[in-house]
Amino acid sequence: MDVSAQIGVVGLAVMGRNLARNLARHGYTVAVANRTPERTEAFIGDFGHEGAFVAAAGAQEMVAALERPRRLVVMVQAGQATDDVIAEYSRLLEPGDVIVDGGNAHFADTRRREAALRDAGIHFLGTGISGGEQGALKGPSIMPGGSPHAYRLLAPVLNDIAAIAPDGTPAVAHLGPDGAGHFVKMVHNGIEYADMQLIAEAYHLLRNSTDYEPRRIADVFRRWSEGRLNSYLIETTAEILAHRDAHTGLPFIDVLADAAEQKGTGRWTVQTALDLGVPVSAIAEAVFARSASAHTALREAASVLPGPARTILDERDAERLVAQVEQALYASKLVAYAQGFHQIQAASQVYGWNVNPAAVADVWRAGCIIRASFLDRVRDSFTAHPNLPGLLAHPSFARELGAAQLPWRLVVSHAARDGVPVPAMAAALAHYDTLRAPRLPAALTQAQRDFFGAHTYRRNDRPGTFHTRWDLDRSEELRG
Amino acid sequence: MDVSAQIGVVGLAVMGRNLARNLARHGYTVAVANRTPERTEAFIGDFGHEGAFVAAAGAQEMVAALERPRRLVVMVQAGQATDDVIAEYSRLLEPGDVIVDGGNAHFADTRRREAALRDAGIHFLGTGISGGEQGALKGPSIMPGGSPHAYRLLAPVLNDIAAIAPDGTPAVAHLGPDGAGHFVKMVHNGIEYADMQLIAEAYHLLRNSTDYEPRRIADVFRRWSEGRLNSYLIETTAEILAHRDAHTGLPFIDVLADAAEQKGTGRWTVQTALDLGVPVSAIAEAVFARSASAHTALREAASVLPGPARTILDERDAERLVAQVEQALYASKLVAYAQGFHQIQAASQVYGWNVNPAAVADVWRAGCIIRASFLDRVRDSFTAHPNLPGLLAHPSFARELGAAQLPWRLVVSHAARDGVPVPAMAAALAHYDTLRAPRLPAALTQAQRDFFGAHTYRRNDRPGTFHTRWDLDRSEELRG
Repeated sequence: MDVSAQIGVVGLAVMGRNLARNLARHGYTVAVANRTPERTEAFIGDFGHEGAFVAAAGAQEMVAALERPRRLVVMVQAGQATDDVIAEYSRLLEPGDVIVDGGNAHFADTRRREAALRDAGIHFLGTGISGGEQGALKGPSIMPGGSPHAYRLLAPVLNDIAAIAPDGTPAVAHLGPDGAGHFVKMVHNGIEYADMQLIAEAYHLLRNSTDYEPRRIADVFRRWSEGRLNSYLIETTAEILAHRDAHTGLPFIDVLADAAEQKGTGRWTVQTALDLGVPVSAIAEAVFARSASAHTALREAASVLPGPARTILDERDAERLVAQVEQALYASKLVAYAQGFHQIQAASQVYGWNVNPAAVADVWRAGCIIRASFLDRVRDSFTAHPNLPGLLAHPSFARELGAAQLPWRLVVSHAARDGVPVPAMAAALAHYDTLRAPRLPAALTQAQRDFFGAHTYRRNDRPGTFHTRWDLDRSEELRG
Repeated sequence: MDVSAQIGVVGLAVMGRNLARNLARHGYTVAVANRTPERTEAFIGDFGHEGAFVAAAGAQEMVAALERPRRLVVMVQAGQATDDVIAEYSRLLEPGDVIVDGGNAHFADTRRREAALRDAGIHFLGTGISGGEQGALKGPSIMPGGSPHAYRLLAPVLNDIAAIAPDGTPAVAHLGPDGAGHFVKMVHNGIEYADMQLIAEAYHLLRNSTDYEPRRIADVFRRWSEGRLNSYLIETTAEILAHRDAHTGLPFIDVLADAAEQKGTGRWTVQTALDLGVPVSAIAEAVFARSASAHTALREAASVLPGPARTILDERDAERLVAQVEQALYASKLVAYAQGFHQIQAASQVYGWNVNPAAVADVWRAGCIIRASFLDRVRDSFTAHPNLPGLLAHPSFARELGAAQLPWRLVVSHAARDGVPVPAMAAALAHYDTLRAPRLPAALTQAQRDFFGAHTYRRNDRPGTFHTRWDLDRSEELRG
């Protein structure tokens, strides 16, 4: 086989297929391979006319087909399948070649793989890709992590196939070494969970407290999407709520089972945040809301639990609620993003990644599920205040939160009184009030720990760790 | 050395030391050993007069000193130290002997160790022990997991040294095979986090919304401890709030740094619950509250964020708030316990443990940090309704929640309006409202997932999984 392809794609499930087509549409000659060669043949049959493809029957043919240094994009399932493909190809590749893992790998696996391949002289670019099937085809958001050299080998290609933000820049940036890219992608998905849950809560509150039909709530979301809430998910919400079910004539949203599923990256985000000691309560509540919804036997048993009398607001109060919910949704969304960025910055410190949060916001502005207008401002704010901890405290966001806090409080307290669950909005507000509190009851927690476990405490007025002899004379001793 | 000791204790840090003394006080001849023999000598010097001890210089002496089948209690740090001790002793032990791990092991490690030792014919009892130093000495709550045979070998001893509940039964029960005991202990600690956070929130709300001094709030807690909230942690709260700092003359609680620490079992609980798909939001908020309190730079930066005007209730409204907070605290506590029991029951199913939740409640009634009067009723309720999913739906608790829900709502909405963070109470209320909701906005979440990722959905009116062709004619196709 001639050396003729500029890049290879291994794995032709829907994401790999569409990424290969995206590459070909941008003029690259793309070698393609799949574990089952039938799928490779089917791909050539279906899409061969779209560009220059080289069908590789197996790993040897693939490696033989690629220009040096070889660039191989692996698009197979995260986990064992990825390890298997890497093992198979790394035996055939040469020092200087680069493997791109475009799957949803756990960042710890990416770190392990990058280190192992580095020893063999092979570069490894762990790359988060967001945007779903359509994104892969028409331009995804791309989050690569790896050595600067590995990134340089891929940068021209990634710039070509990435989504383009409204200002003309492609949604790709080198985010850091080894696992940084997959970590950022994981947190992207965690934020996506929170974004979706907050939207669901906003919808649920309007649906329960007003007599608005879904179609009318769709109009509300459409209006919101013209303001600072402008985002892909707000737009799709309007589309979904306006959709009518063809079979029943009912609003589509009313015929769906109300049990949500999940694939695991939201869970990973929260588990990793716990290891890092970062509070990501809005994201966690979103993950829990999905699992709670799916516990049907528990919900059935709990349906006996009483709630308050339901109140339906009149037209004027309903309009007022709509305006308040917009504020609550925006403020809560800011908290969810702030928690996600905090997590990325904490990981960046622990792993020495030196991730630039402005670059992260930049890459999320186009192609991915959480793309949103306000990410322009997040990027600008991180650029202007690189050392200010916490997105919420950045001047322009602090100002907006200050303006939103009162209606936000009204929405959360209204929901609590009326029995409408808004776990993520309530968690976001509690997070806001926790961070700004001059004094927290964590002092009591720490005193308890000293009381029953002699875990010691610190004082406000002098350094050192202390223990009170609770079971004796209650005198205080300096412990360290 | 003569074969003369009925039981051995390896590891003479404070927990092992006190457990060995507890054993000796109950008439057992206890062989003791430690990695550094100096500590063994010091132990004999300090406590040798309390009972019959055999000082073993090392593993061989320890094994030679024990009656057969040998019973060896390992009280060393969880993790590598535990593995090291097990490796050292398992070479010397014989089939039929039993190792008890009384440390805070992760249940997955316990499963691994139990399986490895089983192959060598050695029994392994992974045993959670709660109650701190004083509990180990005077009677802890004991949560063993392992084979029925291993449990039988230890049962008489454990019954002797365990705490005694008010009705005279010891706080120990065989909870299931392999990791069941350490799992239950882990969830115990997770619930302990939630319990402490809920108490801290109740205190914080009373402190912020009234002009009550800590001493007066101590009286409130003392009064509460005479009712259904009666528990160890409510009592210690009253003690702590009444305590005055000798150095400054100020309330002790006001001189402590308000940054809480943690050792990891709360985090494990949440991480494991996420793997099991169990919503443990009240526990998670407690873990997050601790880590948020410790992010001092973030809190400093966020101190610019505005809050509402602070309102101080007059005497009569303050008394009303106290009564409402009692209801909110009790209802939220029920939710935290229900979430923990749900997690235990989910793990029991996944791992085939057949854990009896009534036995768990029974073991938690005495000796441990979360001991509380209402656990009698939890045990009775699980005994009466073994197949009713969800503690909240049990008739007697559902009745109490029905009575508490309105004041609970008022407390959460009051806190949201007044800017006092009550993340765990708010999460508990949202969980309550989520479970009892006839309809959840998870339908919208699922529709979103289908919109951007073709993840399919289910319908209320017919079986199957469906996908809507959102990007084409919006027709619906049956996918499976």
